[in-house]
Amino acid sequence: MTLAARPLRLSTADVGFEAAFQARLHWSADTDTQVEQAVTDILEAVRTRGDEAVLEYTRRFDGVQAGGIAALELKAPELKAAFDSLPAVQRQALETAAQRVRSYHEAQKRASGESWSYRDADGTLLGQKVTPLDRVGIYVPGGKAAYPSSVLMNAIPAQVAGVGEIVMVVPTPRGEKNPLVLAAAHVAGVHRAFTIGGAQAVGALAYGTATVPRVDKITGPGNAYVASAKRRVFGLVGIDMIAGPSEILVLADGSTPADWVAMDLFSQAEHDELAQSILLCPDAAYVDQVHKEIDRLLPEMPRADIIAKSLSGRGALIVTKDMAEACAISNRIAPEHLEIASSQPHRWEPLLKHAGAIFLGGFTSESLGDYCAGPNHVLPTSSTARFSSPLGVYDFQKRSSLIEVSEQGAQSLGRIASVLAHGEGLQAHARAAEMRLKP
Amino acid sequence: MTLAARPLRLSTADVGFEAAFQARLHWSADTDTQVEQAVTDILEAVRTRGDEAVLEYTRRFDGVQAGGIAALELKAPELKAAFDSLPAVQRQALETAAQRVRSYHEAQKRASGESWSYRDADGTLLGQKVTPLDRVGIYVPGGKAAYPSSVLMNAIPAQVAGVGEIVMVVPTPRGEKNPLVLAAAHVAGVHRAFTIGGAQAVGALAYGTATVPRVDKITGPGNAYVASAKRRVFGLVGIDMIAGPSEILVLADGSTPADWVAMDLFSQAEHDELAQSILLCPDAAYVDQVHKEIDRLLPEMPRADIIAKSLSGRGALIVTKDMAEACAISNRIAPEHLEIASSQPHRWEPLLKHAGAIFLGGFTSESLGDYCAGPNHVLPTSSTARFSSPLGVYDFQKRSSLIEVSEQGAQSLGRIASVLAHGEGLQAHARAAEMRLKP
Repeated sequence: MTLAARPLRLSTADVGFEAAFQARLHWSADTDTQVEQAVTDILEAVRTRGDEAVLEYTRRFDGVQAGGIAALELKAPELKAAFDSLPAVQRQALETAAQRVRSYHEAQKRASGESWSYRDADGTLLGQKVTPLDRVGIYVPGGKAAYPSSVLMNAIPAQVAGVGEIVMVVPTPRGEKNPLVLAAAHVAGVHRAFTIGGAQAVGALAYGTATVPRVDKITGPGNAYVASAKRRVFGLVGIDMIAGPSEILVLADGSTPADWVAMDLFSQAEHDELAQSILLCPDAAYVDQVHKEIDRLLPEMPRADIIAKSLSGRGALIVTKDMAEACAISNRIAPEHLEIASSQPHRWEPLLKHAGAIFLGGFTSESLGDYCAGPNHVLPTSSTARFSSPLGVYDFQKRSSLIEVSEQGAQSLGRIASVLAHGEGLQAHARAAEMRLKP
Repeated sequence: MTLAARPLRLSTADVGFEAAFQARLHWSADTDTQVEQAVTDILEAVRTRGDEAVLEYTRRFDGVQAGGIAALELKAPELKAAFDSLPAVQRQALETAAQRVRSYHEAQKRASGESWSYRDADGTLLGQKVTPLDRVGIYVPGGKAAYPSSVLMNAIPAQVAGVGEIVMVVPTPRGEKNPLVLAAAHVAGVHRAFTIGGAQAVGALAYGTATVPRVDKITGPGNAYVASAKRRVFGLVGIDMIAGPSEILVLADGSTPADWVAMDLFSQAEHDELAQSILLCPDAAYVDQVHKEIDRLLPEMPRADIIAKSLSGRGALIVTKDMAEACAISNRIAPEHLEIASSQPHRWEPLLKHAGAIFLGGFTSESLGDYCAGPNHVLPTSSTARFSSPLGVYDFQKRSSLIEVSEQGAQSLGRIASVLAHGEGLQAHARAAEMRLKP
């Protein structure tokens, strides 16, 4: 076991920077033929055989000894009991985190979620109404990487949006239930919960079974089987996004203690060997300091092995010409998490166009955002921040356009529609407009 | 050739209504193995060989005799010339439609697109900033079904959102350019345009070639090859949605002239044999009238054959117990276009939860919405209005969370994050929070 972290050292002034930088960024979600075939079979079985297939796969893959599918439902009293069994400090942390996440998403709903309409001069009404989804499924990973914070981050925006029913699925390998996950479901207001996981859980939510209700959208992270299943049921139901490995990019001007920055880089690296931690800084001496702190702190970390592999394989410490160049490079990366470890974060923030979440100033460690600052921790990865957004209330709402054309409006609009419809060769469209014209 | 339209007649009071209704609704986008394989090959060729492959496929599939890829670009003067060549009535119709679509989407942007932030009691700033996408691609079908209105409906919301560069692709089978499509691109403010189409155009936009710039998102309708290609590049770029056949559902209380309703049903049916037109009405005598108008008007229609096939294969005229039941059935269908052909549209509108666009009152023919009322005509089909929305300004924007934790905030938040991070076994997360605590 090697404990040395060897992040790539680069300078934008280097000949060959561009090629080395590109190579380090490269990551591709190779589709694994075996996974794809297994998921095809599982989804087909769940679609045609329902509960029976879900039970069968849950026994086989999770080693759960359930007599029937009903035994896989977690009822409200069990969720509450899990919450009550926690030490007070954990109960309080969960509740405070939930309250902050709720406040933030309530503000988000006010800012982005209202219906609107107006009437134009001829009395025609135009607008859009915003309504919540009826029922959503949230997928929560189980086993080793069971994250109660993910329960909060998926369920609370759905609840704030006004979703009628939130159905949680969480696998429990060998029947082991994580009390923090169950407690989080209690705190977040999950309506129903099942101890199922994998592609079979995604299938059950997408198609519905006798026991598991069919949902309108599925959100939440999962392994390769879950990701593949979500991609396949997309269209039949909505999905949030397909997440890649986690990423952090720190823009530093040298004003934040170097050990804080080193630990922030670790906090992504510890997720996964494929996670990516990058430092961009114009001050080479400061980059050296962070590098030294990495070497000093690494042996203390319980997940040192994963951190070392992640930093050595995908990490980079890059010296830039200045902060403006660092911002430009950050825009090319479009990172999931972007820390501005600067004494002037508001100077640089306007230059940053693409990021899932932007953490301003040295006190804003990414981990505060992961758990309890309030904003969502489900964020676009792998450069998808170029076109997508954090999970939010808007993911649990949809819009319907509203149009009410007045008799007067039908005269002017009808003539335009008629001309354009004839131009497209769609005569029924034209006639429908013309019929509303006064003779 | 049969010219009889035989929509299924049902009553919710019938024994067997449920089964017949379900069977009529059923539609599944079967994936065609041959299409899938062809798209795999085309995308791979475009990804690896770029312009050369795009040119090759464009010659082969569109019969275009271009010497090189540069010849496939439509420059601004050509777009303007196409506009200038149109009859005045068409120029004016395009401009008025564009202006109305722009006004509506500007209102939409104000209603749903602003950045926001707030500071909590301990000085911590929380919010979200909204930014436009850098560059988008819009796919416009060519040949027989060339729809200039689709150019407006895709390009204008992108332009209102503030997208830096809008790249249009439109196939021109045998080199035939549709002047209305080119003119619409001129009016809508498209920045660059290429006469390419199919999976090769989607690939060029997603991967970028020496000539075609790589975009961040691809929107717009297309055939099975285009749909398959969009589905595959999803994740590398954003996509809008995968559209199924068009649908209209008319809720009628008998107050709208029966021939208007018949023509509105035709106006979806004429798109495609697989399009679906449904009438829900509590008044059996009125349903008979509409049926008679269908028979009377059908022979007059230039696209009578398509209309007849669509209505016979997928259309339905359903007598309901009352309007409330009709609304409940509509919610189960979640139609793309929903007309409330009633003298009291605002009485029923609040009961309607799922629809792409809602057309209120007898004067609001769906065709006015298709062309010029203002709202977008790119709408969720195949029940996806349960979880998705009309194409809009929000599709061309993305959000980044903003978090700036104050020194004081780092104390309270740090303690919570530490407890939860230890609970998840992520000690670097915990340490990053703890380092910010005052001793």
